[in-house]
Amino acid sequence: MRTSDNNNMLSRNDMIAHVISLFRDTMPFIKLLELEFVRPDSKKDDDKEGDIELHVSWREALTGNPLQKILHGGVTATMLDTIGGLVAIIETIKRTSDADLASLQTRLPKFGTVDMRVDYLRPGRGGKFIATAKVIRGGARLAVCRMELHNEKGDHIAFGTGTYMFG
Amino acid sequence: MRTSDNNNMLSRNDMIAHVISLFRDTMPFIKLLELEFVRPDSKKDDDKEGDIELHVSWREALTGNPLQKILHGGVTATMLDTIGGLVAIIETIKRTSDADLASLQTRLPKFGTVDMRVDYLRPGRGGKFIATAKVIRGGARLAVCRMELHNEKGDHIAFGTGTYMFG
Amino acid sequence: MRTSDNNNMLSRNDMIAHVISLFRDTMPFIKLLELEFVRPDSKKDDDKEGDIELHVSWREALTGNPLQKILHGGVTATMLDTIGGLVAIIETIKRTSDADLASLQTRLPKFGTVDMRVDYLRPGRGGKFIATAKVIRGGARLAVCRMELHNEKGDHIAFGTGTYMFG
Amino acid sequence: MRTSDNNNMLSRNDMIAHVISLFRDTMPFIKLLELEFVRPDSKKDDDKEGDIELHVSWREALTGNPLQKILHGGVTATMLDTIGGLVAIIETIKRTSDADLASLQTRLPKFGTVDMRVDYLRPGRGGKFIATAKVIRGGARLAVCRMELHNEKGDHIAFGTGTYMFG
Repeated sequence: MRTSDNNNMLSRNDMIAHVISLFRDTMPFIKLLELEFVRPDSKKDDDKEGDIELHVSWREALTGNPLQKILHGGVTATMLDTIGGLVAIIETIKRTSDADLASLQTRLPKFGTVDMRVDYLRPGRGGKFIATAKVIRGGARLAVCRMELHNEKGDHIAFGTGTYMFG
Repeated sequence: MRTSDNNNMLSRNDMIAHVISLFRDTMPFIKLLELEFVRPDSKKDDDKEGDIELHVSWREALTGNPLQKILHGGVTATMLDTIGGLVAIIETIKRTSDADLASLQTRLPKFGTVDMRVDYLRPGRGGKFIATAKVIRGGARLAVCRMELHNEKGDHIAFGTGTYMFG
Repeated sequence: MRTSDNNNMLSRNDMIAHVISLFRDTMPFIKLLELEFVRPDSKKDDDKEGDIELHVSWREALTGNPLQKILHGGVTATMLDTIGGLVAIIETIKRTSDADLASLQTRLPKFGTVDMRVDYLRPGRGGKFIATAKVIRGGARLAVCRMELHNEKGDHIAFGTGTYMFG
Repeated sequence: MRTSDNNNMLSRNDMIAHVISLFRDTMPFIKLLELEFVRPDSKKDDDKEGDIELHVSWREALTGNPLQKILHGGVTATMLDTIGGLVAIIETIKRTSDADLASLQTRLPKFGTVDMRVDYLRPGRGGKFIATAKVIRGGARLAVCRMELHNEKGDHIAFGTGTYMFG
């Protein structure tokens, strides 16, 4: 039934919006770092992967060395882990059938990173840093993402790979 | 000559103390997280590996979820990356011959993490967290460390492996 | 009831023996490399972790360079992946309740490696190579192992970390 | 001088051809697996990255399970490690100045993998498997590559990341 379909579509988008707001509004460490969640272009197709980014502006508190003004590697790791996890959840919601959506929701509180690799390609210099992620393996229980960090000039600062599990 | 040996030993220990103070006193992101560098037992043998630890007390700002009081994975990654890098430098100083110590010092500003893997074993619950590291591959240019994070009860929260390079 | 307990214990041990025989007798790539599965001491406590090892004797076909007689990195990776997977299955069988053992058995054909990291510590020189593994995170669906490769003199040649999933 | 430039260009190409022939003709484990080195299009621009691929045709000896006909994960790891290492060397030769080429050559025998991560995305099914690699961080001493394995239909079977060092 059409109404029901609409409801389900709405609830899927609502669930995604809810998860983004959980990450943005309730995670103290995200706030301490002043990370911003940005939807690059809200008019884009719903099914597009990687439709959310994590941004941060340079400030001294995020550096490992105030003279060199380079981002601390822990900031890079935090951004990659966070965007990978968020995109893993969003893509899993999109791929989940209406019938299984409620079950997914109950497992969300147990979602977590299993393991992550970060490759630091060049020093984290810049005025703004943008983290993006893409699911390379998706499943009901497990998702693997590749993540990237660039600065505002497009310099590629780091690569990451993360394996995430749903409860 | 004994005097010369003493001088060299002193300068090696001085260099180690200097590096620890660089990490502790001049890195803004370390201060933002309020990480503490602790030498577990200063009377222990100089050549012992892993003679420094990184501690942090739980506080809400470091959590990913204030209800569950669990450490954010980015804090874990930051602690493992930092203790791995510091222990890699300390052990390299110890293994460097007197003749090569000055050259090592000039390369220190270019020291950095090449890549890191973190395995999250269990949720980061506890009142205090202790990160330790051990060099598993040491060389003039490259070092590989294994790192661990435990809480104050000895629960094993995370494993890490980091590859570090000297300029 | 005692008899029932005995039956269950037997079937758990039978299942472990069956899995070892699957790895040893039916995997063509294991045979191509002539890897041997060795139970170091069959009298040891049943519940001891890591009670199986993977051995291989040096031969030219396994080298990357016939002049240097060094094991090819792919042999190391194969041995670490294989022993990690086998130990992950064995330990999961041991931890599975009698009630869930049948369900585990049906999921075994879908068991597989999710990701693996190998750290090559020193050149693979020696007459014999021994791979061992230990579960660092165990669950109903996912297991994470740390693996090691030594030669017959005890030289530490490689470390590995593997994440494995049950169907 | 033009002649001298030509000579240098030739010697750089000769060195690349020499390295490919070392991998193809002298490594026993590569021969045991019957891996083939393929230059996809020899007319392409010299400076293009990833201008060599590693191929293997399915055969039972490379499987982990003869019933399922799936490639053993160790074959995947071997192919990714090998193509990553070869591409790391080729790209380093291309980036090395004429003046430093002789020095690079003397360090080649000590070239080796430092660490590698493999992500297994889907079961290794197919008639032919193609491994490719791309340098993501290049330097005089260290190179980091991303590698991929596809089957002949273009199914993406595995991702890899490898860190390599020159002596």
